[in-house]
Amino acid sequence: MTIELGANRYGKSAIRLVKLVRGADRDVVRDLTIDIALEGDFVAAHTAGDNSRVIATDTMKNTAYALAADSLGADTPIEAFGVVLGRHFAAIEQVTSVEVSIAEHDWRPVATSSGVAGHAFTRAGGGTRRAVVRLAADGAVDVRAGIDDLTVMKTSGSAFAGIPRDAKATLADTDDRILATRIEARWRYGGGELDHNAEYVAVVATLLESFAEHESASVQHSIWVMGHAILDRHPAVTEVTMRLPNPHHWLVDLSPFGVENDRSVFLATREPYGLIEATVRRGAADG
Amino acid sequence: MTIELGANRYGKSAIRLVKLVRGADRDVVRDLTIDIALEGDFVAAHTAGDNSRVIATDTMKNTAYALAADSLGADTPIEAFGVVLGRHFAAIEQVTSVEVSIAEHDWRPVATSSGVAGHAFTRAGGGTRRAVVRLAADGAVDVRAGIDDLTVMKTSGSAFAGIPRDAKATLADTDDRILATRIEARWRYGGGELDHNAEYVAVVATLLESFAEHESASVQHSIWVMGHAILDRHPAVTEVTMRLPNPHHWLVDLSPFGVENDRSVFLATREPYGLIEATVRRGAADG
Amino acid sequence: MTIELGANRYGKSAIRLVKLVRGADRDVVRDLTIDIALEGDFVAAHTAGDNSRVIATDTMKNTAYALAADSLGADTPIEAFGVVLGRHFAAIEQVTSVEVSIAEHDWRPVATSSGVAGHAFTRAGGGTRRAVVRLAADGAVDVRAGIDDLTVMKTSGSAFAGIPRDAKATLADTDDRILATRIEARWRYGGGELDHNAEYVAVVATLLESFAEHESASVQHSIWVMGHAILDRHPAVTEVTMRLPNPHHWLVDLSPFGVENDRSVFLATREPYGLIEATVRRGAADG
Amino acid sequence: MTIELGANRYGKSAIRLVKLVRGADRDVVRDLTIDIALEGDFVAAHTAGDNSRVIATDTMKNTAYALAADSLGADTPIEAFGVVLGRHFAAIEQVTSVEVSIAEHDWRPVATSSGVAGHAFTRAGGGTRRAVVRLAADGAVDVRAGIDDLTVMKTSGSAFAGIPRDAKATLADTDDRILATRIEARWRYGGGELDHNAEYVAVVATLLESFAEHESASVQHSIWVMGHAILDRHPAVTEVTMRLPNPHHWLVDLSPFGVENDRSVFLATREPYGLIEATVRRGAADG
Repeated sequence: MTIELGANRYGKSAIRLVKLVRGADRDVVRDLTIDIALEGDFVAAHTAGDNSRVIATDTMKNTAYALAADSLGADTPIEAFGVVLGRHFAAIEQVTSVEVSIAEHDWRPVATSSGVAGHAFTRAGGGTRRAVVRLAADGAVDVRAGIDDLTVMKTSGSAFAGIPRDAKATLADTDDRILATRIEARWRYGGGELDHNAEYVAVVATLLESFAEHESASVQHSIWVMGHAILDRHPAVTEVTMRLPNPHHWLVDLSPFGVENDRSVFLATREPYGLIEATVRRGAADG
Repeated sequence: MTIELGANRYGKSAIRLVKLVRGADRDVVRDLTIDIALEGDFVAAHTAGDNSRVIATDTMKNTAYALAADSLGADTPIEAFGVVLGRHFAAIEQVTSVEVSIAEHDWRPVATSSGVAGHAFTRAGGGTRRAVVRLAADGAVDVRAGIDDLTVMKTSGSAFAGIPRDAKATLADTDDRILATRIEARWRYGGGELDHNAEYVAVVATLLESFAEHESASVQHSIWVMGHAILDRHPAVTEVTMRLPNPHHWLVDLSPFGVENDRSVFLATREPYGLIEATVRRGAADG
Repeated sequence: MTIELGANRYGKSAIRLVKLVRGADRDVVRDLTIDIALEGDFVAAHTAGDNSRVIATDTMKNTAYALAADSLGADTPIEAFGVVLGRHFAAIEQVTSVEVSIAEHDWRPVATSSGVAGHAFTRAGGGTRRAVVRLAADGAVDVRAGIDDLTVMKTSGSAFAGIPRDAKATLADTDDRILATRIEARWRYGGGELDHNAEYVAVVATLLESFAEHESASVQHSIWVMGHAILDRHPAVTEVTMRLPNPHHWLVDLSPFGVENDRSVFLATREPYGLIEATVRRGAADG
Repeated sequence: MTIELGANRYGKSAIRLVKLVRGADRDVVRDLTIDIALEGDFVAAHTAGDNSRVIATDTMKNTAYALAADSLGADTPIEAFGVVLGRHFAAIEQVTSVEVSIAEHDWRPVATSSGVAGHAFTRAGGGTRRAVVRLAADGAVDVRAGIDDLTVMKTSGSAFAGIPRDAKATLADTDDRILATRIEARWRYGGGELDHNAEYVAVVATLLESFAEHESASVQHSIWVMGHAILDRHPAVTEVTMRLPNPHHWLVDLSPFGVENDRSVFLATREPYGLIEATVRRGAADG
């Protein structure tokens, strides 16, 4: 009976890197959490305990800090820094592919009565930018951009009705419910040069605008509408994947207390929650 | 040998309440997490299992939802809603005091290309507003306002030097370090009428501005300076308490990699962290 | 330009279900967290907002509670309950496949001086049992068992040495380090009848025993050794996948304080951490 | 108008310290999370940015590691190690009091078919031991022991009935509910020599046994009964404080699905939760 090694990968996660790009009057803060993972010929490390081809995860961490010194500027997109990191590792003989995932924590200058502070910042809300870059040893590059934890709510324009009925389908139809979710979105870019920072800002604006403006029949429907809007308006994007939790807001029955509740007072819940995932993409005809 | 009941209190925590105040063109979202705790004559509940004077925590939850219907409007300060809730419970015979603590999660209308959405919102960053209200059966009211999780960073204007030295005091003096913290602040209001919403906004502005503008010699010093600024500019405030974690940012030694690190690349840490707490208050001479 | 729906699935997550199986002298607690996800023909729900074929996630929750009444007994393996849930949904016309993932939280009777309590329990440590069951509309069933959060440490018998060297590979070789990890393991069963409860206990025993007894050259090596041991001893298992974080324990340099540290005092860290994933499986020759 | 410094303290939190006490055949793992806080004359640090009397929190961390080398053995109670740490800081001129809080994470040797492993461990469940020690500059010592996160459930012997009724008190009386909680308990020891390890084990055994054996009329009542049992059986203990969350288990109405639910299937919730805190202590007559 043979036993063999199947799929495997390894790397360093949660590398917490802050770089200050210092200016005359103001600094720029780059605050990243980086995960690096390698695939390649690491069979001997597993089966023979032979580390002679193992890039230590500690070395990955060192490399992230070392490359940040030169390759991470005030405006360097995390997609570009991910490619720099990925290229470093993809060039190593035994590595067949590298995945670098970077989250950027956004700091905004403090506004004061005398202007905008140059050296003081607050952590901004509004979701966390994410880039996921894969590089293969043969030079192929796959870039996905995205956003995590973009927490949004529709207080109108959201329905859920018309489901098939049986005894267990007790949820009442509604043409007006709260839709609240924490958007995790990833979109893939086709080839060609791109201003990643501008593109990110534009895609997120479309995401929010389409979230605000559509009439939602379900979370599934909302993913389609938002994904469709992104593909419509942003030619560089080839597909969009979203993963949306649906933590429910239940209208509270206040009638026992002699109080009317005209779609106004809700109980927000965390568990259980719906979880809806879908990809919207350009069709085969787009070539 | 006698055994007796000492200090005791009980209540309901994490009451998650969302109220929509619907308008013609736009809604306002009030999203609160409420904790209620009662003190009073509950000895028999403990020692005899006699619940005849116990307000069920389920009833506290019901009361929060019921009172929100009428007493929580688009602009009702959480301090005021806390007082409404507190009064309800303080009026019960066996209750001697009530503490109501309310966190408000801030939702901002989505900005779209055609203006500001009326029915779509994003969860804002910038800290969570907090009110802590205590009411006694005798009518005394104590109101504290505050903010949690206001995450801020100074990239300049922060030193830490001049500590006494012994063998274990190995931390090098620095006249330039990153100061990053997650502000938890509480301030107490003296008596008198107050526009709590305006006051909150003003105090937080002072907090941020003084954070940005002072030269910090230590976290202790920063608490003093910020608390002092708040008391200076806001006569309604009688004391300010802050609790500031100090998760460190260490300058990475890049010299082994042949790279210079001119106060630029830092490793951000979570553990261990300094924790500094202090109250700044008006002195006795102020009456 | 066409835009189309790609991969999609949806379901209910974090269904928190506790069932008491009451006995004459003692109860049994089954405490489950259930995630259900469906794939199938849900295109119209996305693209047309047509819910006429959508199983509401609320219905999934209802179904879990309803089926637990009859189909979850004191000894029912979570793998078997997962199959019951999965069959229910796989039988629906528009569903092509179902994934049910169940975590079981283990409660042990309290030991008292007069024996074992029949109605009082403590939450046990030692990891959380997990079953992941996939059923296809054509009747195919795939069962994986596993454990999460099995936190373990080797204080001896763990080395990490012999990596290739360059300027960034600064981690010193060591023939004696702490290896601490939180095991996430999944193993797949081949066909045939199986006593899932007994098998789970036996596999976890092998996992722990092989963890304890091998000399580790790296986390990669440890996965191989433990996976190999499981496949060796448990014919029903066809493959094992592990995902092991490696949060580091650094030997503290106490020499500045005039104290010797003979591999004794360590600083435990959470970030960054290595993350090693691999599958060990029976080879094609076993077919 | 004067502004002055009020109460203040500072220190280092989450010092993660692992010590291996190596033996011939087996090691002992001491895994601690330590928080240290000082009070004293630190006015100048706040008001003048003068650090000449500030013990750096980095130094506190160094001290914890340095003292662990000599003062933390295989059997040293965390109460005793807390006193060692506390004495070090209380002896510093400007310090008036020190609080050291230590949590110990429990590792148990892995059981294998050939016996008990000497160098491999699993993190145990069953709550986290805690010691909180306060030392004053005048030599006074206050020692509290405790346990956190001891998660327990009663499936029988728990009622909640007889509350006063009004419109908002809608919770039905029950003579049989699930009582599930995560015990946080602290008990204070009077003076005199004590085997802290044995005492801890004995108090926790009483806590669990009394939890299992009493008929609970409410969480308040349970605290009293358990606290009373501890004081009855353990003369060294002078008071017990508990803080018990009450996350609810709701019986699910299965009748819409044609299924009977005979007090068997429950929905476990996290929010909102009751929170009950009380101290049980020896009375004044005990001197």
